[in-house]
Amino acid sequence: MISGSFTIKTSATMECIDITSHLSRELAPHGSRNGLCFLFNPHTTAGLTINEGADPAVRGDLIAGLRQIVPLDFPFDHLEGNSPAHIMACLVGSSLTVAFRDGRLQLGTWQKLFFCEFDGPRTRTIHYHLLPAS
Amino acid sequence: MISGSFTIKTSATMECIDITSHLSRELAPHGSRNGLCFLFNPHTTAGLTINEGADPAVRGDLIAGLRQIVPLDFPFDHLEGNSPAHIMACLVGSSLTVAFRDGRLQLGTWQKLFFCEFDGPRTRTIHYHLLPAS
Amino acid sequence: MISGSFTIKTSATMECIDITSHLSRELAPHGSRNGLCFLFNPHTTAGLTINEGADPAVRGDLIAGLRQIVPLDFPFDHLEGNSPAHIMACLVGSSLTVAFRDGRLQLGTWQKLFFCEFDGPRTRTIHYHLLPAS
Repeated sequence: MISGSFTIKTSATMECIDITSHLSRELAPHGSRNGLCFLFNPHTTAGLTINEGADPAVRGDLIAGLRQIVPLDFPFDHLEGNSPAHIMACLVGSSLTVAFRDGRLQLGTWQKLFFCEFDGPRTRTIHYHLLPAS
Repeated sequence: MISGSFTIKTSATMECIDITSHLSRELAPHGSRNGLCFLFNPHTTAGLTINEGADPAVRGDLIAGLRQIVPLDFPFDHLEGNSPAHIMACLVGSSLTVAFRDGRLQLGTWQKLFFCEFDGPRTRTIHYHLLPAS
Repeated sequence: MISGSFTIKTSATMECIDITSHLSRELAPHGSRNGLCFLFNPHTTAGLTINEGADPAVRGDLIAGLRQIVPLDFPFDHLEGNSPAHIMACLVGSSLTVAFRDGRLQLGTWQKLFFCEFDGPRTRTIHYHLLPAS
């Protein structure tokens, strides 16, 4: 198993950032390998998701939709005031599994990997683990 | 690692389709093996989930519930008009991991695997990867 | 692959229970190993998630938030009356993947693993599979 991490800087309170090329760069030295890639987000007010990357409006609509779905002004108990961000993290999820072949991520035609920031801007770390197939 | 794909045809705009038997057929030739099965949906307006399969009303209620949760008439920016489907895909998720033993999926008593169509009807592909345990 | 299970008793209709120490105990005999841990919830009205464990208010807010998000009094078709619990299970998800190193779960600073009960109180089982890295 090959493990590593990379960091990104988010620039808004809430945004989805395409991290596909970040991960592809990490895979490049393993260009002849097949296997599975596990992505893990170690933060509690952020998430990882896969969705359409062709039209940037989609990633904006994901944030707009989540802000409609999760009550932003509910009287939550957590005093830091970022409970909506924790709930969004729970809905979106914190890990992803994607296959790779010949060192390339096996995503669908329109799919990209997104890091979802729900309580930024911050510097965030993403961990990955590559499991080469035997 | 053993990889493969199968396709299904969806017949409604939104529906949950039980794909457990499709996957079980793929596992059948590996009947003596134990390990992990990774399922991946390469589409951006669909998802994969695990839920009750005994009462077909549950899978209908999942769709009914998602249609209540995700705003269907919000002024989203994506011009194709299917942003609610992209958001549902994000909420439900696009990959699953299930163990298999003696070639059988190790699901709970009431659990079945569902492909969730949110922008159909379409022909959809599901990828799987079997990782036999050493 | 090392597989096992543990059970927990939930004590409310809906609650998030920190299961990190349960899983850490299962990992302890494999203290020198690195790899991936797959957690699986075999129930259809419960889920698994990762979120903040430092302030217990966060896990309460997750439940409070889900109760705002999922319509509790919608006329669902499933006659058992627990369709909101099935929908919450779908939103939260039923499996998790976490890396371990030297026998310890590689969670973020504030992260803990939570079992989410949506239709309790009940006795619940959680399955795990440890895949040691080669």
